[in-house]
Amino acid sequence: MSYFDRFLKTNRAYADLHGTAHLPLKPKTQVAIVTCMDSRLHVAPALGLALGDAHILRNAGGRVTEDIIRSLVISQQQMGTREIVVLHHTDCGAQTFTNEDFAKHIHRELGVDVAGQDFLPFEDVEDSVREDMEMLRQSPLIPDDVMISGAIYDVDTGLMTQVQ
Amino acid sequence: MSYFDRFLKTNRAYADLHGTAHLPLKPKTQVAIVTCMDSRLHVAPALGLALGDAHILRNAGGRVTEDIIRSLVISQQQMGTREIVVLHHTDCGAQTFTNEDFAKHIHRELGVDVAGQDFLPFEDVEDSVREDMEMLRQSPLIPDDVMISGAIYDVDTGLMTQVQ
Repeated sequence: MSYFDRFLKTNRAYADLHGTAHLPLKPKTQVAIVTCMDSRLHVAPALGLALGDAHILRNAGGRVTEDIIRSLVISQQQMGTREIVVLHHTDCGAQTFTNEDFAKHIHRELGVDVAGQDFLPFEDVEDSVREDMEMLRQSPLIPDDVMISGAIYDVDTGLMTQVQ
Repeated sequence: MSYFDRFLKTNRAYADLHGTAHLPLKPKTQVAIVTCMDSRLHVAPALGLALGDAHILRNAGGRVTEDIIRSLVISQQQMGTREIVVLHHTDCGAQTFTNEDFAKHIHRELGVDVAGQDFLPFEDVEDSVREDMEMLRQSPLIPDDVMISGAIYDVDTGLMTQVQ
């Protein structure tokens, strides 16, 4: 049995409890959260979000990429969000490699040349949060009056600490 | 009080209950889920995921983009995932616009020319899941033996239905 089949089974029980209710497409808090794909961070309970509260965007590292900007523009211009939280975390997979070594690994394992591609690793998690907040502030696609905050999530304690 | 400040406050209570425990960096199920940022989908409870179980990747639409491929390569090559689930949903924001109209809106609201840029809207949600599964199958960066499944989440009922 694949995990997909198990997810479908568990989901039937979840749907039984869910019942039928239509929530609006536009998030209630008008917030979009940009964070990492890490398995040890469950965003909704960690921040106290109910269904319908906020957009949650996740990629490797929680980095601000073109695709995140695309998503935020849709979030803001189509669905009315006005605040962004950049949330990185301790013990991140993006801290476990360099682009150069990773490109060598990919070439060896998959036979694909990705030399020169930036996989967006980082060393210091406070720096990465500040860098990504700055990317958002500099983007002409994010209006100047959008509130941008940053924080680090500790995967061992569940605690979130603001980055100024 | 911004929502960010409220999240920090709620998170302190969450962390009190969380306690201290170190889970491994590598997801236990070896699954990565690619899904939408939509506020009405809380992935972990909907699929029965515990902390540490699976990578969760989210953007506007749950579309397979270069950034999602970047994230999946890190997920697979650095953290050992071997299965991908593409999960789109009903009543998606990506179904509310066309690239042409959206570019006009952006130009009017932000004064930025994004004509020609694909914001990845779609009409039919089954088609978008199939298209993105195919993108993954075609990518030289995703090994052929990775299991790829697709499904649609109903935001009104919480039920997930497989797409073949």
